Order: sequence, then structure tokens, then C-alpha cells
Amino acid sequence: MNNFTFFSPTEFVFGRDTELQTGKLIRKHAARRVLIVYGGGSAVRSGLLGRIETSLDAAGVFHISMGGIQANPVDGPVYKGIEIARRNEIDLVLAVGGGSVIDTSKAIAAGVPYEGDFWDFYIGKAKVTKALRVAVVLTIPAAGSEGSGNSVITKESTRQKMSLRAPEQLRPVFAVMNPVLTFTLPAWQTAAGITDMMAHIFERYFTNTPAVTVADRMCEGVLQAIIEEAPKVITCPNGYDARANIMWCGMVAHNGTCGVGCEEDWATHFMEHEISAHYGVTHGAGLAVMFPAWLTWMANHHVERVALWAHRVWGVAEQSDLRAQALEGIARFKAFLQQIGMPTDFKSLGVPNPDIPLLVDSLHRNKGEYVGAYVRLTRKDSEEIYRLAL
Amino acid sequence: MNNFTFFSPTEFVFGRDTELQTGKLIRKHAARRVLIVYGGGSAVRSGLLGRIETSLDAAGVFHISMGGIQANPVDGPVYKGIEIARRNEIDLVLAVGGGSVIDTSKAIAAGVPYEGDFWDFYIGKAKVTKALRVAVVLTIPAAGSEGSGNSVITKESTRQKMSLRAPEQLRPVFAVMNPVLTFTLPAWQTAAGITDMMAHIFERYFTNTPAVTVADRMCEGVLQAIIEEAPKVITCPNGYDARANIMWCGMVAHNGTCGVGCEEDWATHFMEHEISAHYGVTHGAGLAVMFPAWLTWMANHHVERVALWAHRVWGVAEQSDLRAQALEGIARFKAFLQQIGMPTDFKSLGVPNPDIPLLVDSLHRNKGEYVGAYVRLTRKDSEEIYRLAL
Repeated sequence: MNNFTFFSPTEFVFGRDTELQTGKLIRKHAARRVLIVYGGGSAVRSGLLGRIETSLDAAGVFHISMGGIQANPVDGPVYKGIEIARRNEIDLVLAVGGGSVIDTSKAIAAGVPYEGDFWDFYIGKAKVTKALRVAVVLTIPAAGSEGSGNSVITKESTRQKMSLRAPEQLRPVFAVMNPVLTFTLPAWQTAAGITDMMAHIFERYFTNTPAVTVADRMCEGVLQAIIEEAPKVITCPNGYDARANIMWCGMVAHNGTCGVGCEEDWATHFMEHEISAHYGVTHGAGLAVMFPAWLTWMANHHVERVALWAHRVWGVAEQSDLRAQALEGIARFKAFLQQIGMPTDFKSLGVPNPDIPLLVDSLHRNKGEYVGAYVRLTRKDSEEIYRLAL
Repeated sequence: MNNFTFFSPTEFVFGRDTELQTGKLIRKHAARRVLIVYGGGSAVRSGLLGRIETSLDAAGVFHISMGGIQANPVDGPVYKGIEIARRNEIDLVLAVGGGSVIDTSKAIAAGVPYEGDFWDFYIGKAKVTKALRVAVVLTIPAAGSEGSGNSVITKESTRQKMSLRAPEQLRPVFAVMNPVLTFTLPAWQTAAGITDMMAHIFERYFTNTPAVTVADRMCEGVLQAIIEEAPKVITCPNGYDARANIMWCGMVAHNGTCGVGCEEDWATHFMEHEISAHYGVTHGAGLAVMFPAWLTWMANHHVERVALWAHRVWGVAEQSDLRAQALEGIARFKAFLQQIGMPTDFKSLGVPNPDIPLLVDSLHRNKGEYVGAYVRLTRKDSEEIYRLAL
């Protein structure tokens, strides 16, 4: 097991009607002037934004709102949010939404006290040393951004999709998680979110670090819970308990609970970022296409953990032929993805003729000569994996 | 699933040589004057205390020490610590040890700014509203006190063993966890610690709250990790990886990670507290005696979860006779406890003739007419369970 730090200071307030506590929580964290960031009109139409504003008013908290954040969030709204926040002397950015809204809020929070271009943080030109506080009312369980210090933003002019990690500054101070708010999430987005949270666990589980028993068992346990609850939320979107289990799985998949002491991989996420940056697909759907391809390639090159995963997570019987064991697990994973409505190849993703040389070039230009850690992928390797997804 | 709050703001710094960061961590948390609380002479003889003091000196942190805290910590050293802390204008209490040292440090931290008797907090006469900060260098994985806001202290004059819960005030701000520090822990204490962490998970797992899939799977995963690693640390005390896995299991067993959204039980802990308060036995050994008895009684009165636990945690085949399935799981649990050197009845605990009426009286006087939640135990029930442990 490797040395590690686990630091998850976010206060998670989970359950029915918890959004009514937002104002009180903001006061508890000593903030007074709030920028509310949200996505489409559904937060307005559903009355959620109104309930939150009422809660803020009751707590005597100043607030101003900025909507219109879209999936695969881009840099434009970040600049706009920074300007609004500066002009209104905001001290906390409240994200009402899912990963895109939260990641935009984190970018705004980092950008406000910084004199240069916030994009500097995403290309490694500058480090975040101070930021406004960020808090969350979660409506889409998927990215796990409510419990992480990470943010992913795409620069529109260059189609660069880059990530920033600054847990000490950008981890939300609190996250309100009411499963009822996810009842209206369409099946497609629900399934893409489920795929994303599973992928966050895979990126930790596929490791070469030896003797990480507790990390393995917790990863396997959360995956088993997702596999059990996912079909329920697809067939019965208003079932509270299944929605609640899925919502919490999305958080623990990415706040550091899973995978302690493991070297992490992240190759598949980076490969997917190129697809969503260039073709605008849903991140989770892109992962549903790329993870089976990555796993299939690994079954031929570094099979051990894939075979273990097939046995423990998918219930495949142990056998002497580890590759066959691994491939049976991958087949069950693909069947699961199809059952919840996800694509598992480029064609069903709606990108029948991807420009693979472009994706490979962009991947290695953004991430370097080698990508990933379970196997360090060369350009030749990543090209092979993209082709396995055709 | 019930509504819940998960808030674990402790910074866990885990791995080899991490105690050398203690001074830096204290400065990071803006403390300057530290009371170091420790147990026996082993912290001095091993050089650990010296290394910590050097680290504090290098960081320019004032420190003063108080040793001699024993297992089943009592009120005397708390009063002494409060006096030392007040006289030296201490702002952080650094516990170097296991549960007893940490719980004593928390009692001191709560007592310093309080004008009355610190015992008021333990008998519910007063609530902790402010406290000195607490931090930890952990040497015994067992109680999970490094990640919890709880403290258990015994009042010597009355043999009352009482617990306090004040997570907002008493959760350690950081915990340094170096598995190497546990290499010298005797097999008995190691095994008692393992039993204690398993018991912390059981108290959450045995619940009537429906549909807690993710909580179930995480509890089962951590238990499987403990069952796999425990025999290794007993037979090979200097094996880093097994010690590391066990150390982390002890933390997640009690910081709220396991059992989210579940109504918890705690009857067995309270029944054990009476035994250790009256007979001075090791808490974990007392739990090794009481949990099989509690489970056996439950197999006759509320079998469902015991049967599930037997199947998922101990690998007992599913069968139509749930009681038989449960009893086979309990038999495997007892065999496991005996394998790691724990007693499983009063006799092997060294208390061949316990005064059961005294234990029952004291239990219900301290905890009320009913104890526990999975089944609310009456005096008759708790007497039957104590007798099952004979």
C-alpha cells in the first residue's frame, strides 16, 4: 500500500428536503454573499431554485444567479461568472446542478482572486493558492464533483478539455444531496451518470500497487451496490431508495473513499475527454464506449486485475484461463451497460467515423508520451484501444 | 435509507514516517501550544515521543507532555490534564496512542474551556459548545477514535463507563497513521483491536432500516478485508501491508463511512462497557465474548440480517433454514476470534463467575429501560444474552 492523505472535509447533508437547509448551512460556513450557478431551466421550472432562494433570504444571505451552464462546460461562462462575482463581492459560489455546474463554479471560485487568466490553472501555468468557497446542491449523481477538489473545463476555441486538481482550495464546504431532486432526471442522463461513477472506481481499482485489500473490497462493494440499484432507477425513476443509493455511490466513488493507497490510472478518462471535446458527446456515454475497449485491450496485455474484477464484481467463476475469465466479465459489463441504455461502441454513440489519428494526436499532445499507469499507453497502444471501440 | 449527515473533516496522513510531519501539521492547523498525552513508557522507549518532539521543535511549537494513560481510561488524568492545559495556555491536545489516550485527550479538550465538571458532558448534564482542538498520532488501531467525535471515560469512584458524542467540537483535526508504529503491538492487543473494529461495523450493519444497499456492501467489504488481513498481522507482526490494511479498516469502521443512512444498534457495546467497567477487562476481548452471545440471541429473535451476514461475510451457503444459516456464520465468527487469540466466553475472558444481576442493573440504570435498536432489549433480554456468554 502506498502512502496517502485522505482529507474529505465536505459536510454532506443527505436526504429528503435537505435543500431547505441551504441558507442555514451557508451561514454556518460564515458566508454572506452568494453567486448561485445553475444549468438549464429545469431548476427554475421545478421550483428548486425558488426554494433555495427562499432559504437564503430567510438566512439573510445576499444572492445573485447565473444560469445556462451546459454539459461539457466551456470557458465562456467562467469568465462571465468571475466578472459577476467580483462586481458583487461574492464570497461563496453555490452550484445547483451536476458536474458541469459544479466544475464551472470551481473555476469561477479559483478565478476571482487571481489576477491572470483562470485557464492558467488548467494548463499548469499557475497553481491555485486561494479561492472563494464552493458549495453544492446536487441534482445529477455522476461526476462526484460534490466531494472532489477537481474541475474539468473545455476551452472552446481550441477544443482542449483539461482538468484541474486543487482539493485544499476547491473541495465544496458542504453538499446538499436530496435524492428526490433526481427523480426527473431522464433515463439517458441517469445511465450516463451511473457509468461515470463506475468509471471513477475502475480508474482506482486497476492498479499495480500490491496488497491494497481494503481498497479492493470497498471498490468492489460500491460497484456491487451500483450494479444492484442501477436497473431499478432506470425502470422506476421515482423510487427513493434506489435513487438514494445511486446518489451516495456517486460521491464515494470520487471523494477518495475508494482506492486509498493505490496508484490510479485515468487513461480511459483522458481518452474519453478527447471524444467529448471533439464530438460533444455525453461524458458518461463516451466512457461506456471506451471502458470496454480499454478492458479488452488489458485482457491481452495485463490480465490479472481484469480477471479478479470479473470474478468479484461480476460473479464470473474462477478458472485457469484468466483471459477467458476477464473477457466473460467484460461481456457482462457490456450487457449491463446496454441494459441501462448506454452505447458500447462509436457507432451507437453517434460517432460512426471518428477521426482516430486526430484523437490520438490530441490525447498525447495534452497528456504526454505515455498515458495511464496500469499500463503506460504509447501512441500505438491508445490507437489500438480507440480502434477496439469501433 | 434514512436522512443522514456525513462530515469527516479530519485530515488523515497515512504511511511510513508520517509522524515526522506532526510539527508541520500542527502549524498548518494554526496551533502553537501543544499538550502531548500518551500512555505507557513504550512511546518513550521506542523513540516515538522523541521524534514527535523534534518535529514540534523544528516547527517552533511549544509542547509539554503528560503520560500514564491506561486502558479503560478514567477521570483522574482528565482533571490533571485540564489543569496542565489551562496553566500552559494550550491550544491543541495531541494524543500519541490508541483509543484510551485519544478519548482522554478529547475529555481534556472539552473540559478546558468549561467552568463546570467535565463529567457533566458524559452524563448529559451539559453540552460541549467549544473545545481545544484535538490531533492524533495513532499507535493502536482499534477504537477508531482518531476519526470520530466520540469519547468514552470511566468515573473511578462509581465505575460508570459513559460515552460522549460531540463530533463538531471533538473530531481530531488531523490524524497521523504510520503502520510501522503498530509492529510492536502485542498479539493480544492487536486481536482485541481487530475485534473492536469489527464490532463497530456490526453495530451499524444490524439495522432495521430498509434498502441500505451501499451501506451493506461497504460494511461487508471492510469486514472481508479485516477477515483476510487479521490472521496475517497475528502470525507476522512486522508485515507492513497487512498492518496498513488493518489500521485503515479501524478508521473507516467508525468515522461514519460505513453504515450511512442506517439506524445503529450499540446494545453490545453498552453491555460490554458494564463488563470492562466492573471487571477491568480489555474492551475488545469483552466484545469478543458478548457479540457471539448477542448474535446467537438474535438468531432466535430477529434472524434476517444475521443470516445475510453469515452468507455475505462468512461465505455460508444460502439455505431455507435461516436460523441454521445464521448459526453457521456465528460458528465461523467464533472460530475466527479463537484463531486470532480472543476469548469467546466469560470463562476464557478470566471472569468465570460474573455477577449478571449487577451487570443488568447497571446497564439499564445507565442506558434506560430498553437498550439497542435492532431489537430493543428489556432487562429480561439482556440477562438472557449475558447468560449466553457464560
